[in-house]
Amino acid sequence: MHQETENLGFARLDHGRASRRGAVETIFCQGKTPEQVAAIFERFAAHDGAAFGTRASEEQYRAVLEKVPDACYNQLGRVIYRGLDKVKKAGRVAILTGGTADLPVAEEAAISTQFFGAEAVRFTDVGIAGIHRLLSVMDDVSACDVIIAIAGMEGALPSVVAGMVDRPVIAVPTSVGYGASFGGLAPLLTMLNSCAEGITVVNIDNGFGAGYSAAQICRAIYKQQTGKETNP
Amino acid sequence: MHQETENLGFARLDHGRASRRGAVETIFCQGKTPEQVAAIFERFAAHDGAAFGTRASEEQYRAVLEKVPDACYNQLGRVIYRGLDKVKKAGRVAILTGGTADLPVAEEAAISTQFFGAEAVRFTDVGIAGIHRLLSVMDDVSACDVIIAIAGMEGALPSVVAGMVDRPVIAVPTSVGYGASFGGLAPLLTMLNSCAEGITVVNIDNGFGAGYSAAQICRAIYKQQTGKETNP
Amino acid sequence: MHQETENLGFARLDHGRASRRGAVETIFCQGKTPEQVAAIFERFAAHDGAAFGTRASEEQYRAVLEKVPDACYNQLGRVIYRGLDKVKKAGRVAILTGGTADLPVAEEAAISTQFFGAEAVRFTDVGIAGIHRLLSVMDDVSACDVIIAIAGMEGALPSVVAGMVDRPVIAVPTSVGYGASFGGLAPLLTMLNSCAEGITVVNIDNGFGAGYSAAQICRAIYKQQTGKETNP
Amino acid sequence: MHQETENLGFARLDHGRASRRGAVETIFCQGKTPEQVAAIFERFAAHDGAAFGTRASEEQYRAVLEKVPDACYNQLGRVIYRGLDKVKKAGRVAILTGGTADLPVAEEAAISTQFFGAEAVRFTDVGIAGIHRLLSVMDDVSACDVIIAIAGMEGALPSVVAGMVDRPVIAVPTSVGYGASFGGLAPLLTMLNSCAEGITVVNIDNGFGAGYSAAQICRAIYKQQTGKETNP
Amino acid sequence: MHQETENLGFARLDHGRASRRGAVETIFCQGKTPEQVAAIFERFAAHDGAAFGTRASEEQYRAVLEKVPDACYNQLGRVIYRGLDKVKKAGRVAILTGGTADLPVAEEAAISTQFFGAEAVRFTDVGIAGIHRLLSVMDDVSACDVIIAIAGMEGALPSVVAGMVDRPVIAVPTSVGYGASFGGLAPLLTMLNSCAEGITVVNIDNGFGAGYSAAQICRAIYKQQTGKETNP
Amino acid sequence: MHQETENLGFARLDHGRASRRGAVETIFCQGKTPEQVAAIFERFAAHDGAAFGTRASEEQYRAVLEKVPDACYNQLGRVIYRGLDKVKKAGRVAILTGGTADLPVAEEAAISTQFFGAEAVRFTDVGIAGIHRLLSVMDDVSACDVIIAIAGMEGALPSVVAGMVDRPVIAVPTSVGYGASFGGLAPLLTMLNSCAEGITVVNIDNGFGAGYSAAQICRAIYKQQTGKETNP
Amino acid sequence: MHQETENLGFARLDHGRASRRGAVETIFCQGKTPEQVAAIFERFAAHDGAAFGTRASEEQYRAVLEKVPDACYNQLGRVIYRGLDKVKKAGRVAILTGGTADLPVAEEAAISTQFFGAEAVRFTDVGIAGIHRLLSVMDDVSACDVIIAIAGMEGALPSVVAGMVDRPVIAVPTSVGYGASFGGLAPLLTMLNSCAEGITVVNIDNGFGAGYSAAQICRAIYKQQTGKETNP
Amino acid sequence: MHQETENLGFARLDHGRASRRGAVETIFCQGKTPEQVAAIFERFAAHDGAAFGTRASEEQYRAVLEKVPDACYNQLGRVIYRGLDKVKKAGRVAILTGGTADLPVAEEAAISTQFFGAEAVRFTDVGIAGIHRLLSVMDDVSACDVIIAIAGMEGALPSVVAGMVDRPVIAVPTSVGYGASFGGLAPLLTMLNSCAEGITVVNIDNGFGAGYSAAQICRAIYKQQTGKETNP
Repeated sequence: MHQETENLGFARLDHGRASRRGAVETIFCQGKTPEQVAAIFERFAAHDGAAFGTRASEEQYRAVLEKVPDACYNQLGRVIYRGLDKVKKAGRVAILTGGTADLPVAEEAAISTQFFGAEAVRFTDVGIAGIHRLLSVMDDVSACDVIIAIAGMEGALPSVVAGMVDRPVIAVPTSVGYGASFGGLAPLLTMLNSCAEGITVVNIDNGFGAGYSAAQICRAIYKQQTGKETNP
Repeated sequence: MHQETENLGFARLDHGRASRRGAVETIFCQGKTPEQVAAIFERFAAHDGAAFGTRASEEQYRAVLEKVPDACYNQLGRVIYRGLDKVKKAGRVAILTGGTADLPVAEEAAISTQFFGAEAVRFTDVGIAGIHRLLSVMDDVSACDVIIAIAGMEGALPSVVAGMVDRPVIAVPTSVGYGASFGGLAPLLTMLNSCAEGITVVNIDNGFGAGYSAAQICRAIYKQQTGKETNP
Repeated sequence: MHQETENLGFARLDHGRASRRGAVETIFCQGKTPEQVAAIFERFAAHDGAAFGTRASEEQYRAVLEKVPDACYNQLGRVIYRGLDKVKKAGRVAILTGGTADLPVAEEAAISTQFFGAEAVRFTDVGIAGIHRLLSVMDDVSACDVIIAIAGMEGALPSVVAGMVDRPVIAVPTSVGYGASFGGLAPLLTMLNSCAEGITVVNIDNGFGAGYSAAQICRAIYKQQTGKETNP
Repeated sequence: MHQETENLGFARLDHGRASRRGAVETIFCQGKTPEQVAAIFERFAAHDGAAFGTRASEEQYRAVLEKVPDACYNQLGRVIYRGLDKVKKAGRVAILTGGTADLPVAEEAAISTQFFGAEAVRFTDVGIAGIHRLLSVMDDVSACDVIIAIAGMEGALPSVVAGMVDRPVIAVPTSVGYGASFGGLAPLLTMLNSCAEGITVVNIDNGFGAGYSAAQICRAIYKQQTGKETNP
Repeated sequence: MHQETENLGFARLDHGRASRRGAVETIFCQGKTPEQVAAIFERFAAHDGAAFGTRASEEQYRAVLEKVPDACYNQLGRVIYRGLDKVKKAGRVAILTGGTADLPVAEEAAISTQFFGAEAVRFTDVGIAGIHRLLSVMDDVSACDVIIAIAGMEGALPSVVAGMVDRPVIAVPTSVGYGASFGGLAPLLTMLNSCAEGITVVNIDNGFGAGYSAAQICRAIYKQQTGKETNP
Repeated sequence: MHQETENLGFARLDHGRASRRGAVETIFCQGKTPEQVAAIFERFAAHDGAAFGTRASEEQYRAVLEKVPDACYNQLGRVIYRGLDKVKKAGRVAILTGGTADLPVAEEAAISTQFFGAEAVRFTDVGIAGIHRLLSVMDDVSACDVIIAIAGMEGALPSVVAGMVDRPVIAVPTSVGYGASFGGLAPLLTMLNSCAEGITVVNIDNGFGAGYSAAQICRAIYKQQTGKETNP
Repeated sequence: MHQETENLGFARLDHGRASRRGAVETIFCQGKTPEQVAAIFERFAAHDGAAFGTRASEEQYRAVLEKVPDACYNQLGRVIYRGLDKVKKAGRVAILTGGTADLPVAEEAAISTQFFGAEAVRFTDVGIAGIHRLLSVMDDVSACDVIIAIAGMEGALPSVVAGMVDRPVIAVPTSVGYGASFGGLAPLLTMLNSCAEGITVVNIDNGFGAGYSAAQICRAIYKQQTGKETNP
Repeated sequence: MHQETENLGFARLDHGRASRRGAVETIFCQGKTPEQVAAIFERFAAHDGAAFGTRASEEQYRAVLEKVPDACYNQLGRVIYRGLDKVKKAGRVAILTGGTADLPVAEEAAISTQFFGAEAVRFTDVGIAGIHRLLSVMDDVSACDVIIAIAGMEGALPSVVAGMVDRPVIAVPTSVGYGASFGGLAPLLTMLNSCAEGITVVNIDNGFGAGYSAAQICRAIYKQQTGKETNP
């Protein structure tokens, strides 16, 4: 295994991850000081060229900018990243949202999908309360390799989508809702109990995890086709 | 208020309910001895002509039969009843089930719908994993006055149905499922958090409650039309 | 099915809903930016004449006002709306609250009832701790077509009301309370487990859902009576 | 403090409890072998004259009978006891049940009330779905010193009762119900969140605890009145 | 029943409660506007002489003061009251707290105890982590008529206390703690499952409910002795 | 969409699923009568050649055998199936179990993997309590296309595995455990909160869902490589 | 690390654990067939001399006996073991139980304590409802090196004990109780939230885990004293 | 027992704890006013020389400083303390964290470990997503006497660590995470259900409790070795 690490005292960077796992280690920014985020980001950028931080505040981004001037920030998705332009993309991921309020999670999923090696195709506000909206885009959805279905409230979107196509569906419950949603517990349970086959689930609001897994599957599909890794 | 009661010692019968609420008091048989059920059923049959007991075992039914020989038993729905043939029915209630395993709850809903004054029209196994099954019956469903949508697992059926019609939808979560269904909690939360308007919810596996409320709405609709109660 | 949609990029408007479901699509404002709410509201107002947004902040309302000068705002109920004056109202909905702190939910229920086509009659602070307060208004309550019973804390109001009349009761648990209320879970469970027949339940604090369903039932009652839709 | 103990190896009997707390130690029979129950019961009977065991099976009772031939068994309440005839009773406790299925808990409460020193007056099946049943007995209920209100399902009985009288109300949630009752959690939360003053709550199905506390209050009332303990 | 009510539009005052239940209706201030609290408080003060509001903010108190200049405010317990000096007190209630952070709940309990008719005797910081602190005050505690035991974290105080005396113990769980306390759920469950007899429980942080019930029991004890109500 | 259905009254078979979704509809046997299972199985076998039923009892299998004599039964995995020998398999799925007690879920996953089109390679009892067991098989695990990681108790296996390879990991929590496992809730939450990227989760004990999704990904990989579907 | 393993197909034995961790691998028997348990037990007995299986049924023990005739069975604690007589014991562990119904968990803790290298000293039925029982044994308890405190219901025993001594306390919640105990959740939360320092907690009913950890600490204490491992 | 107490009115100080339990009473600062904290801290400092307060804000520290000028504050761990320089330290405690965001809890654990008598050795950011980071430090970890393993998210670190060494592992779940972490519930359940022996658990974010218990074990080890207490 590739196991090179770098110890910053407050963090131990896993520089072997890119060669071991096909992707640089992701920085979970929440709960870290801006200085910690900046120091970690700088080291990854220096060592791997690429760096990727989720759940990042603007204050954390400003600290990063001072050390890595060409770092980018996706405000809606709250992601700091560098090196996206170097990523080779293979395959396409459809990203569906039940409603407009799910957009931040969708944006995190989209930027993650791209960073980890696939194209992201967005289908916004296709929730099941007006199912013809969903039906009208299903041809385009089916043309993608993997589907990410994001929904809050009752979270039924993944079930309906999975029933119509032969594509892996990654379901993302969101905390959009109120009352008996219990912070996203309701759509989480919905998705775990789906009667439609072909659905797997990630944590509440975890657009990053969905994007990562979707891109990973795409890389596997097209690596097989071309006989080599997409991002060496 | 009509308030005539009869005290059996272990139970206090509410004989005024038929005139006060438009329907005889329902006997909740679970947790009662067969002798208690039989005694209560006999008194209602004698006083009101009609009687209705839910969650009834076969043993309880046999005890009832000894005292009320023309009592009927719906085995699948676990309901003992008498006087259904005298009920005037007004309006129609569509009863949809997500899957075959939901049939006992659907049967309880159907017999309750009929007993409390409306026609029951069944649409079985129209779950959303193959949504064309549902779409193919929606014209017939829309022709009913009220819709009861019954589903276990992720419980998304009511949301999809409500999004397509202008009919009150009563959602019934069932305990069909396993694991993170937590005995029906998952579909219950799904239904409470529905993003489709026009849905109200009853307790897990409560086919009776759904049937009662659906019939009550039908009676209201057609009482208005005819200017009088359907079951005097 | 009427399926006309309009894609704003961040939202996909369901303009067919009024003809398909008898009512314009409701805008769930929570989690949307003021600009998004304003753009969506403007398009519905332009296309359907009427528009309705729930859980709306004053800031969102101000953004709407710039685009739709005659939009109205119900501050207590947090609803933005337009076109209420054109609504034909059929039937009456009794809106009962257990206590004064439930008033915001009641107001959302009342304005929703009116917007979707029925009269709203308020009965405030008739909680069961002093049951004669409730008993003294029951004659007026019974004269309505549908009853919405709103309560926090132990949430027993719907059970007591439903036991006295033959009217559909829609129960709304509220998050009013503390400690073991767990944000409204306590009254939600109370209402779902009611021993009184004729009760259906909506999500915690969901006055909108209750008002919508109550009006929908009223429309069905009076459409049946007169042979035509109330809001063409 | 009176602290005499007797060590049986598997149990350590608290013979000082009668003088220290005014009542003999209660044996919680569930989870003990019949032999253990019998040995403990015999020692209490020998030492204190009185003995009291809750949640006892018939098999445990038969084992007790071999050692203490005049031990009694309340089958419905599942209580083994001896010495009840020697108890002086002071004050009266009203025991109300919401429905017939709550009777086992009520019986445990009644026998406990009597054993620990007060009269038990039963009011069966006075649930709130037909509130006139409750209203019709309230005069007799008010004439008691303490009220035990037992209910499953939504558990609203204590709130309604407490709102009408100036008597301490001890609320007992039962596991009667199904679905979202979650084994009695629903009525437990209802009772804890009651908006009516003067209610305190015991564990689900804990008729014993309610009876003990109710009798304890009665003993305090009448000891004060007469200037001496009721059970010396 | 005494049933005089006064309808303020947003509230329906129960002026019959003092004669019906022995105490004026309590105002639950949380969730009401300062104006609403002030209007309600003024009407009770005018009609009954006494008034009592819980969970009141300073802002609400200031609004009350403008209408009722002699209203008092207990800042720690967050209670507004008037007429405490007229209350006849009978019996004594011991109020025990596990730790210093439980003091606000204890203060609410103490002022409620006094207002509803008994003396309050405080025993602060006698938690079980140093049990000799508790043992050293038990003689004084036993000399009271009723015991209120308040504790957060693991909430074991009531069990230990109840095991040592023959007095009714009212247990109050508090939200003091963190992590797996889950806002007071941990001590609530502890108290409900107590193996010591003679404990009843109120809602989390509900010092008011405990004080009301404790005073009610004291009134019952001394009413019996003196042959008349303590607060006519 | 391929939408051919067959209505058996108690079930509505989705014969279009094979062409629409690449796999025949799965029969969820739990909660169905043996007769219902047999009738459904027979119709699928007749129409599609292949049939697959999960959570099937031996009694259900015997009923199937009478109608479909060449139906097979996987006793450990509780699966009835027919047509497995006709399946073309593409790619390999590693199936890892934390302990021996997880084997029934692993078996359901393995037979599902095979039926829906991939090879299943088992790695049993490689839980993290002795991590060298896991490390010693990681080379073979990495050589597979998709990884299914099955674990009960604390459910940490998927996290450790995902951290070492660049393969999609599908995590299956099992109900193996006791106490605070709460029927599999503990490992479910563990897996949803994994800090290792590339993990998606299915329902508790849902070996079928994991096998289906893993095979679906494998089919996508090799379809892409060869330019045609694996199971036409 | 010592990493010798043996692959039985359905299990992968960790023979290096004794030298790596100071104790043989424990067999979790629940969910395994008698044949699997017997085969695993035999291999450990053959390789390590010692073997230890928890949560074992009598049927599993009988299967073991056929292969390992000198295997022993602790029926109350449900443990199969071999080689206990060879264990060197260092230090003493006090095992306290709140009540008689906790004895099975205590027995599992005691046999585990002994097998993994320490003496077990039992103190039965010293629950806090009669705290003098506990106080009377505290001198003997303090003389031990580590304390295991086992309790169901409210689970307050560990808090009271830890407050009196300077010894590590390992708390074991049990599922003894009913209603709001929720299968041991109540005492689990109690113990986690203890206000007394020096308490750590294991899973519900996990006597084994407590015994293992207590013996491990004892071994550490006396290894330090003697300069060598106690069980080489 | 040493039982000297000092009553400040709002607090009752347990000055006997140092001699009875080997350590001064800890002040739980959360929920206390700055003045209360300062007064308590001053009294302990005056009486015992040492004082220790957890969950302390900077405002509370400033109030303490006015009364005890040489009091120290650990900002990250939120601990106020005095007298640490006098502590004799025996043994070493390894403190492992899964990620950088767990550092505040680790700091509380470290300062507590030191104050209560042992050395603290930190191993930061050794979470299992890159297990070689953990493996690379295990030799140093094994050289310590006790291990504290701190982790949020899925909380699998303690299981992996415990499987590799023969040292007591104290597991601390943290609230680091989001969504289905439910405030630390997920890692708490993970740790309680660990399949690796030798793990005990403390409350969520309870670094103090872990440090206290770890130091207590170290003191026991070295007291045994040297024949005397480490902190007289």
